Amino acid sequence: VEKVDLSTSPCSIARALDRVGTWWTMLILRDCFYGMTRFDEFQKSLNVSTNSLTTRLNALVEEGLLERRQYSERPPRYEYILTQRGRDFRPVLLTLFDWGNKHFSPEGPTMLLKDAETGKDVRLQLIDTNTGEPITDERHRYCAGPAATERVRERLERAHKALDAGKNSTDR
Amino acid sequence: VEKVDLSTSPCSIARALDRVGTWWTMLILRDCFYGMTRFDEFQKSLNVSTNSLTTRLNALVEEGLLERRQYSERPPRYEYILTQRGRDFRPVLLTLFDWGNKHFSPEGPTMLLKDAETGKDVRLQLIDTNTGEPITDERHRYCAGPAATERVRERLERAHKALDAGKNSTDR
Repeated sequence: VEKVDLSTSPCSIARALDRVGTWWTMLILRDCFYGMTRFDEFQKSLNVSTNSLTTRLNALVEEGLLERRQYSERPPRYEYILTQRGRDFRPVLLTLFDWGNKHFSPEGPTMLLKDAETGKDVRLQLIDTNTGEPITDERHRYCAGPAATERVRERLERAHKALDAGKNSTDR
Repeated sequence: VEKVDLSTSPCSIARALDRVGTWWTMLILRDCFYGMTRFDEFQKSLNVSTNSLTTRLNALVEEGLLERRQYSERPPRYEYILTQRGRDFRPVLLTLFDWGNKHFSPEGPTMLLKDAETGKDVRLQLIDTNTGEPITDERHRYCAGPAATERVRERLERAHKALDAGKNSTDR
């Protein structure tokens, strides 16, 4: 597998993936949203070596998704707390969870997102708060932003043509 | 890095990550949503070797996210089209894009999601269509589903206690 530097990509998806790092870091973030904060909790949950976990936790601290706090002086012990940037990642995990539940749970879901007030299962939808309308392929498209490079503009132009021709999806 | 089989994990996030494969596959899916369908389009966009790209496209076909269609007999040429399962992945990329734009675009976004009808920038939000309410940490939580294992139940119980204690996030 080739190594490509995604951190300087003009694409926010590529850049986001670069900051998150690996699947493992995504699962650490998942555990943070489950309320875990301590090294041994993550290790027990993820069944991962001390070295790997240390590397990944440090990366998440460095990228500003987690904050490290000392909770014991002797012995020195730290916990890892979600920052605002880390908390803002929740929608990615929620949509990923929803997609996994929908397509890869033949035996039924092991977990369901519920509304604590009504007790009902949540039906997730992504909307535009300006209009309240759900996001659709037809109505909502990427356009060049203020920092768009020439390459990005070309790509978007090709993309809009292809999408207008409707040639990239199937009814299956 | 240890190899762990995520495909049989009781967690839908882990399972979803397993099916998506690698960052690379996520970027291929991104390109599909840009309207790309052909091998050479992906290769030009991703700057990846023929072998790697073949492996990844085949994996996406096998997992049912893309459908392979022959569009030329001589020479034999194929295009790759998003299936329903593939299209359902769009919210994950949209939320990832949004997060990347918000946190890792110091020079401003290169792309913006726009509403074609109003011409305005989209403000993404994840809601529960049952109530129309935005998803929040306080109100919307994971609970055991029909296929929950004992381990999942224990984890959820610990998670709810930790979240009630509010110890996993910071004001930063």
